Amino acid sequence: MRIIQTTQSLRTWRRRHDPLRTSIGLVPTMGALHAGHRSLIQRARRTCGTVVVSIFVNPLQFGPAEDYRRYPRDLSQDLACCREENVDLVFIPKLETLYPQDFQTTVAVRTLSRRWEGEYRPTHFEGVTTVVTKLLNLVRPAHAFFGQKDYQQCCVIRQLVQDLDLDTRVTLCPTIRDADGFALSSRNHYVTKSQRQRALALYQALSAGKAAIAGGMRRADLVEKNMAKVLNAGPGLTIDYLACCDARTLEPLSRLRGTVVLLGAIRIGGVRFIDNLIVRVPQ
Amino acid sequence: MRIIQTTQSLRTWRRRHDPLRTSIGLVPTMGALHAGHRSLIQRARRTCGTVVVSIFVNPLQFGPAEDYRRYPRDLSQDLACCREENVDLVFIPKLETLYPQDFQTTVAVRTLSRRWEGEYRPTHFEGVTTVVTKLLNLVRPAHAFFGQKDYQQCCVIRQLVQDLDLDTRVTLCPTIRDADGFALSSRNHYVTKSQRQRALALYQALSAGKAAIAGGMRRADLVEKNMAKVLNAGPGLTIDYLACCDARTLEPLSRLRGTVVLLGAIRIGGVRFIDNLIVRVPQ
Repeated sequence: MRIIQTTQSLRTWRRRHDPLRTSIGLVPTMGALHAGHRSLIQRARRTCGTVVVSIFVNPLQFGPAEDYRRYPRDLSQDLACCREENVDLVFIPKLETLYPQDFQTTVAVRTLSRRWEGEYRPTHFEGVTTVVTKLLNLVRPAHAFFGQKDYQQCCVIRQLVQDLDLDTRVTLCPTIRDADGFALSSRNHYVTKSQRQRALALYQALSAGKAAIAGGMRRADLVEKNMAKVLNAGPGLTIDYLACCDARTLEPLSRLRGTVVLLGAIRIGGVRFIDNLIVRVPQ
Repeated sequence: MRIIQTTQSLRTWRRRHDPLRTSIGLVPTMGALHAGHRSLIQRARRTCGTVVVSIFVNPLQFGPAEDYRRYPRDLSQDLACCREENVDLVFIPKLETLYPQDFQTTVAVRTLSRRWEGEYRPTHFEGVTTVVTKLLNLVRPAHAFFGQKDYQQCCVIRQLVQDLDLDTRVTLCPTIRDADGFALSSRNHYVTKSQRQRALALYQALSAGKAAIAGGMRRADLVEKNMAKVLNAGPGLTIDYLACCDARTLEPLSRLRGTVVLLGAIRIGGVRFIDNLIVRVPQ
């Protein structure tokens, strides 16, 4: 397994290993790799001749009051994980490599970034789309793999790739969950047992929404009420949003049809949790 | 000479003709080709095995009150010019090809876009950097050629390419002028004889600035005063700006040293003219 830190070495490597740009699969990560990342890497491994994992905690996608400094970092464990998963190249750029002193360019996907996470984290998606544009330009993968856990991010990145003609196929991979349904996330590193216990209600609420739709409910407001009831907001749990949206445009729906995504975000004692479920509404 | 309108055909062509991305030179234009464009194409022809010219009047880089609709368009003459200059491929995307209905992404180079043209045309450079990112991603040229006439644009694009890791070498080519020094521009198509006569003072003013520096003047305010005197603003001629700047950062200077760019923009009866001269200040 090759480890590269500079853009120059990366370019040289890429020209040697994939001159025709047909075989590279990229899994962009911020490290603190868990079973969710492993499943992305495994998916890339099955699809692509060459698998690249990037590890970079991207400051641009953190708000000023967010957890950039305390975001979990454990490089040696991440590298061990990549070795186990038979990754070909790990790209670990330094901060000043991706953002030198005079860096000043921003890539923004307007409409899809506005709602939901965009309302609570106003500069988050700009940070994501800027770094993803850079990574796609540097690695030039034929495929890139993202987890459904961050569903809005996946939509934004798909739009980015289409709008900027990036010539990479974006593959959405299923959310990986613990046995009880709790979605894996690097941020779970600093979630207490009791926070986790309380936060599990988010998955349960989304599941209740899904069940209600399967049971024939078609009014979004009723499904949302259903989900909110399960979440049982109160002291210690705040609902940021809980919505039934069109799975492509992320616009809120009133009557459910087609493919719907149930999006939820809650806060428990300063920690935010997001999750989602995709539901195909029966005709 | 091949003419291509769709991004799909362009990609297919590119994969066949330049799979290793070593030989393509791109000259991005908005059509209405003149001797300035010819010199860019000839420069590309000397440097690159394959020369691509794009012709696209990019609505994003025009302000709402600007001349998008009446911008000169003459495709058959443009194609004749490209044929004469032995261009390999002309890419002429339709509006809806580059900007389909749901297009929503913006690329912005912050600091360098702010001053000078950015003050008078607030969304102009965002439009330029967005379309240039798309064109570079579609054509993937090893080299791209831009005219010094739009000096700030060249600086912005260089920064864009560096910041987004675009892996294209940006080459700045000299401004082409009429015998009297008047800089060629597609917009000259709708400049009257008397406007042209008056606008020539811009080049003369910049030249006077350059001469003053060659004569030993090192205070920017004095050089600027010199240039303004030559321009002789008054009824019918407005100076938007006239400045001595650092050629790399475009920041205004007080004491001249290193490589300086003299930037000027004026308006004469609703038509804007810009021009510039690069001056190496003797030690």
